[in-house]
Amino acid sequence: MKNIINIAVVGLGQVGIFLLNELNTKKKDIELKTGKKINVVAISARSIVKKRRFKVNKKIFYSNPLEIFNKTKIDILFEAIGLSDGISKKVVETALKKKIHVITPNKALISKHGDYLAKLAEDNQVNLEFEASVAGGIPILRTIKEGLATNKISKVYGILNGTSNYILSEMESSSDSFANVLKKAQKFGYAEPGNPKLDLNGSDAFAKVRILSALAFNTKISKHKCLMEGIEKIELKDIEIANQLNLRIKLLGISELINNQLFETVHPCLVNKNSYIGNVGGVMNAVILEGKPVGESILQGEGAGPGPTSSSLLSDLLSILRGNIKKPFGIPSNKRQSIKCYNVDNYVNSLYLRFEVKDKPGVLSTITNRLAKYKISVKRLIQTPDKKNKKATIVIITHKTYELNSKNCLSIFKKDKNILKYPTLIRIYN
Amino acid sequence: MKNIINIAVVGLGQVGIFLLNELNTKKKDIELKTGKKINVVAISARSIVKKRRFKVNKKIFYSNPLEIFNKTKIDILFEAIGLSDGISKKVVETALKKKIHVITPNKALISKHGDYLAKLAEDNQVNLEFEASVAGGIPILRTIKEGLATNKISKVYGILNGTSNYILSEMESSSDSFANVLKKAQKFGYAEPGNPKLDLNGSDAFAKVRILSALAFNTKISKHKCLMEGIEKIELKDIEIANQLNLRIKLLGISELINNQLFETVHPCLVNKNSYIGNVGGVMNAVILEGKPVGESILQGEGAGPGPTSSSLLSDLLSILRGNIKKPFGIPSNKRQSIKCYNVDNYVNSLYLRFEVKDKPGVLSTITNRLAKYKISVKRLIQTPDKKNKKATIVIITHKTYELNSKNCLSIFKKDKNILKYPTLIRIYN
Repeated sequence: MKNIINIAVVGLGQVGIFLLNELNTKKKDIELKTGKKINVVAISARSIVKKRRFKVNKKIFYSNPLEIFNKTKIDILFEAIGLSDGISKKVVETALKKKIHVITPNKALISKHGDYLAKLAEDNQVNLEFEASVAGGIPILRTIKEGLATNKISKVYGILNGTSNYILSEMESSSDSFANVLKKAQKFGYAEPGNPKLDLNGSDAFAKVRILSALAFNTKISKHKCLMEGIEKIELKDIEIANQLNLRIKLLGISELINNQLFETVHPCLVNKNSYIGNVGGVMNAVILEGKPVGESILQGEGAGPGPTSSSLLSDLLSILRGNIKKPFGIPSNKRQSIKCYNVDNYVNSLYLRFEVKDKPGVLSTITNRLAKYKISVKRLIQTPDKKNKKATIVIITHKTYELNSKNCLSIFKKDKNILKYPTLIRIYN
Repeated sequence: MKNIINIAVVGLGQVGIFLLNELNTKKKDIELKTGKKINVVAISARSIVKKRRFKVNKKIFYSNPLEIFNKTKIDILFEAIGLSDGISKKVVETALKKKIHVITPNKALISKHGDYLAKLAEDNQVNLEFEASVAGGIPILRTIKEGLATNKISKVYGILNGTSNYILSEMESSSDSFANVLKKAQKFGYAEPGNPKLDLNGSDAFAKVRILSALAFNTKISKHKCLMEGIEKIELKDIEIANQLNLRIKLLGISELINNQLFETVHPCLVNKNSYIGNVGGVMNAVILEGKPVGESILQGEGAGPGPTSSSLLSDLLSILRGNIKKPFGIPSNKRQSIKCYNVDNYVNSLYLRFEVKDKPGVLSTITNRLAKYKISVKRLIQTPDKKNKKATIVIITHKTYELNSKNCLSIFKKDKNILKYPTLIRIYN
């Protein structure tokens, strides 16, 4: 690699502009650590005039990022637009084909097209780095690829979406509703102002789970969607009841090998309030790995925001400048195997079930009979009457049961006019 | 680098023998991840006949490790003897001079001779890797050098000695004395059977703090010893009183930049029972980094034992086989600066002071007057009489005070015959 490295930054949103400033202010430090001089020679965004946190050099500005490839010679490109397809994919694809290293925090792109793009990078002998796509500032991908490289990993899980974690923490601490806390999160920039859906419905965390699985188990990125639920249906009431039970609700992403089949899921979990994971609050992310021979390893840090994301983007840059490993997923693409998906029906959990019912005789027995029919045994039952409205809340904690049983069991309650809404189900993390 | 790599393992204790087995059983995985075939061509230990966990190949056994260099051609050497000088240093030195990469978990060696050996490695253009020297299976050194490479780190601290952490946890959970729990730790292999002193007096953790400082702050390894205390003086009584105060005792290693001066210390701390660090129990290690722009990052994992140590040793091996970075401390040796040591007298903490006194009039006022004279103000005072023995225990929690004040203040109590033993001081971590 030559000694002067030309860099392009495509996408100047929150992350891109912060990164650009870091690149400009940390040149000396980067030279000290790598022996290379970096030069930002091209930047691109939709609008040149938009007000940004740091000033941009208009002389190197391109409104069409694809023009960069014709007009200037670059060695490394940062893609920070963030689409799963479209211009994001086009820019990355073009760069790799032109033997330009690519660094991106784009989990949507990598979780969807990572296999194809990794192969492209390998064929062109350049790096495709995406440390920032999972868990922000936590260098979890590098840790799996390098720091724990020869461990046999059996499970990776954790809190992978800072927005959801913030909302759940804030609902608990301020006793406020989902809707109000979401507004607060948007105000503070923790949730997308326009469409926060991908954070809240579990999609964002699921994309990260997929990238983690591929690295931890040396497999192709899975296309299955075993089980994905977000936090949209969590009510303050659930958080308060959990609290009384010494539990706390967390949105967990889980990837696990079960009988050599891949089980990937994202869903809210009830965890012990005194557990480690129960105490990761606010916008923090945490990833827990179980591996042999290392045992359990935990990494925790800020999961989002321009600072932590830039930290990971720059670690990718240094890795490239130091001439480090080339394989995007640690091993050659053609050695990464497809893996069968574990049947979600066999997923086993204790459940928290909340029923809102009419307070009349026979309702409770309808529920318990139905549970018994599906061999779901009750561990604890709390009925709280709301006499004024002639309603009651019934919370049932069950013993462990199969996903299939709970699905079939609960389906009938859609039709029961004494059950006022479809029961809330939250799995209890063991 | 050629495709077949010859390896020597020197030292076949708990770590060395486990590593040897991993090298023999993970050849295929290593080839998949690096494209290199490894061959263990030489092993060395004092005794060829000693009973070991895994069988050794006697044909490649050397009782004198220095003979290896004359008899066979090796590319990478693992040093797992563990001395700070003597044969450990000699073997590593010789290997580096002969352009052989070296991997070692030896914190005593690196914290004492790391600067010299790093320079030697750089001059000979080979790697000197020592991930396993700090925090066992936690890839903390690689995380600082690579994953968080361009962050400005202001502080690194944590639980760095698994033996001490096990003893403190076990004293609390079993309400047993230091001496008894130490015996238990030795029985389970968590403490050295012969001489556990280096673990218990803080030396082991201090060596790790020094290595962390050098990496986090890009400085030479310091020679100062700002403040080092181990857990030897912690009594069950202190643990029980801490418990009542919702505190817990942890041995922390801390490295921090204060006004561009380096402050390194190891001492027992009282931490909140609900804090993250307060809940890292047993033989677990945890390292917390404060950096910009990444924010606070936490890494937790098993800190000792052959499994976690081998995990880190193999990550070093893969790094070398992949041709990754050469600088042992991340930047060239000649760019690493010496740094002034922060004056420990200015270290500020709230203190827990426990006095064992004769229960007679005037003793309490002697203590409080003395504290007042040194401007140490009392936040909380708990006096518990032991009427039968005409004694009393006085526990004082102070407001923040300078180390110098507390040192001068307490010195006089050596001579006071009403104070039955020199007061116990434990700093409260804010």
